[in-house]
Amino acid sequence: MSNMKLQTLKGFRDFLPVEARKRQYVINTLRSVFESYGFEPLETPTLEYEEILMGKYGEEGDKLMYRFEDNGGRRVAMRYDQTVPLARVVAQYGSASSPQGQPLLPFPFKRYQVQPVWRAENTQKGRFREFLQCDIDTVGVESQAADAEIVSVVAKSFEALGFTKYKILLNDRKIFGSIPPKAITIIDKLEKVGGEKVKQELREKGYDEAFLEKVQNSKLTDDLNLIIEIAKGMGVDANKIVFEPTLARGLDYYTGMILEVEIDGYDVGSVGGGGRYDKLVGMFLPAGRQVPAVGFAFGFDRIIEAMDEMQLFPDELQTVQVLVTIMGQEYADDAMEIASKLRANNVNTELWLDAHAKMEKQLKYADQKGIAYAVILGPEEKEKGVVTLKNLKTHEQKQTTIEELTELLSAQ
Amino acid sequence: MSNMKLQTLKGFRDFLPVEARKRQYVINTLRSVFESYGFEPLETPTLEYEEILMGKYGEEGDKLMYRFEDNGGRRVAMRYDQTVPLARVVAQYGSASSPQGQPLLPFPFKRYQVQPVWRAENTQKGRFREFLQCDIDTVGVESQAADAEIVSVVAKSFEALGFTKYKILLNDRKIFGSIPPKAITIIDKLEKVGGEKVKQELREKGYDEAFLEKVQNSKLTDDLNLIIEIAKGMGVDANKIVFEPTLARGLDYYTGMILEVEIDGYDVGSVGGGGRYDKLVGMFLPAGRQVPAVGFAFGFDRIIEAMDEMQLFPDELQTVQVLVTIMGQEYADDAMEIASKLRANNVNTELWLDAHAKMEKQLKYADQKGIAYAVILGPEEKEKGVVTLKNLKTHEQKQTTIEELTELLSAQ
Repeated sequence: MSNMKLQTLKGFRDFLPVEARKRQYVINTLRSVFESYGFEPLETPTLEYEEILMGKYGEEGDKLMYRFEDNGGRRVAMRYDQTVPLARVVAQYGSASSPQGQPLLPFPFKRYQVQPVWRAENTQKGRFREFLQCDIDTVGVESQAADAEIVSVVAKSFEALGFTKYKILLNDRKIFGSIPPKAITIIDKLEKVGGEKVKQELREKGYDEAFLEKVQNSKLTDDLNLIIEIAKGMGVDANKIVFEPTLARGLDYYTGMILEVEIDGYDVGSVGGGGRYDKLVGMFLPAGRQVPAVGFAFGFDRIIEAMDEMQLFPDELQTVQVLVTIMGQEYADDAMEIASKLRANNVNTELWLDAHAKMEKQLKYADQKGIAYAVILGPEEKEKGVVTLKNLKTHEQKQTTIEELTELLSAQ
Repeated sequence: MSNMKLQTLKGFRDFLPVEARKRQYVINTLRSVFESYGFEPLETPTLEYEEILMGKYGEEGDKLMYRFEDNGGRRVAMRYDQTVPLARVVAQYGSASSPQGQPLLPFPFKRYQVQPVWRAENTQKGRFREFLQCDIDTVGVESQAADAEIVSVVAKSFEALGFTKYKILLNDRKIFGSIPPKAITIIDKLEKVGGEKVKQELREKGYDEAFLEKVQNSKLTDDLNLIIEIAKGMGVDANKIVFEPTLARGLDYYTGMILEVEIDGYDVGSVGGGGRYDKLVGMFLPAGRQVPAVGFAFGFDRIIEAMDEMQLFPDELQTVQVLVTIMGQEYADDAMEIASKLRANNVNTELWLDAHAKMEKQLKYADQKGIAYAVILGPEEKEKGVVTLKNLKTHEQKQTTIEELTELLSAQ
């Protein structure tokens, strides 16, 4: 067809089955941890009125946002993060009730949200224009117990994914006291550029270079101390927590705890971050009304990259357990029956659909897809009333009855 | 903040937890049926180059498509369906190999895809501008076994969702013989407008009104007969299948079997449809190369509406099983310990985070969220070394040890 070039846009990706399964595995794992703590799912639309999102992410954000005029002449914008939509949801439904008189959003509102966002960034290794955000936030609780719970969910999440050498860097925004936000942003680069460069930049921008040492020598605040104590009570291993007074996460909207997760041996950068931000979620409410909030955003793509590098994905992500092959039209009925029986016993079973294909082709296909077993039924098996089960990894094979086969595979 | 109106765009929806959970339930249920037949997940980007999508959905499609110029001056379009992206994926990776020499897309390619699509339709009851598509397709198999398998997956899917009174309407495109596509579109309206109106429109548009009777009196084709026989062999209840010779599904890209599912008692319309379309998936391949394909699209929103009306959702979609309340700061450590123990035993547990809240407020919250149980720990319980477990539906309560509590709730 024509000479159109078949490609995806820069920064946009197809996920073929092998990658899509990994993504699904991570989402399912995180979701089940979130739900074990009582976080609930929320979904918001891909497009919002432009005025809802504009100006909320600074000048840079406005520039990187996908915005356009829709067919009805409305100015619209694509989801840029999940926090501003959360703030809209809280303002829009926070005091609304269902027809049955139940509040639509009981408070505290503990929600998780796993949806793609779009940013027209310069693409580079590990940075995309469409990427999945995976956030948890507790809205409406001032207590440090909510901060500690976020720390606990984060620890549990990375453990559930199989990470053992993770570190939770913690800081308190209050450490920075009256240091100007721009100077904080410079200090935040410490890990990346080193102390000398930070001091130099502080001087060049007209700030006191002593700011750095002042911050570095800061002591744990009472708040942070309390959060750590509660987190320990919630089962978090204290050895995983590192107080890091220079951590600022670049964002000036944090009002209390700031946290970031790093994985030993994965050097691309942090695999998630968050903190307390008491002045943001109320942005759409009448002036002066604050809504306390604390949350964490998982770095989905980096987590997958780190898990790949550290081989943390289960060997068998392929959900199909067995291919039932077919040696010719005369075996079709038997093959269908075997497939039905296996499925009825919760064995994910692919049935080969073309009775005229060579057996070699069928087995090669199973192997390419990473299916562990193949069932073969030929004249010999049919006469004996058995089937041959072939292990496609070890190439071992044995004859079994269909009942044995079902038991064997459903126990896998 | 300003006098901005807080709202979503017409045809776009927020899904608060109660609705989001229903969606998740349907997705999980369908996904597990798809995977039990060997279908694998695929994801494609939200934005494609405009030229990839333009002209593929007819004039109407081009008009309803969300299209714009991105920040880099590229003409882009938002996903309009999942079939054209599937065709692009097949053309782009169909003969590509991994660095290890394995084909990226082993054929046949049986994939499922569950992603939102966008169409600037006139909104009306049950029609949205952003909606989830949920498709299964088998690409690369000519055999009627693939058609039959689609029928089988469809039957199993609706059963897994709890529908008992569903009907699978089947037809064969070949029934229409040489009847012009526009006349077929008119005949397709039979169920909606009745026979007299169809004949009238046929006459008015200059077609032979006898086309209708000719189609209505058609006999089952050999192909369709074979498909039904195979489907029965795969376990499909023959009583669920209805041959409907006037069924055309409006689309002229079908080349063989056409199917549609209706639910008795749900009158809004069909809850999904599909068929064989052997001339579409090859659209991006060099002229003359055809790729056989057969598939089905589940009508996600209608399925949810029908399940709501027929009360097919499980009573307990709330994933949180229990709220551990807190009577005051001095009980915080115990409450955290109980919550940790419950979670360690796979009981989804929410811990109330504000030690100063009244018990009444905590119980009301649990009730509003539909959490079934609350755990209460006060001075009496503490002295006895027990907790009180309150059933928030029946208002029954009893004292148990923490060990008993864990056993009791993990058995739920």
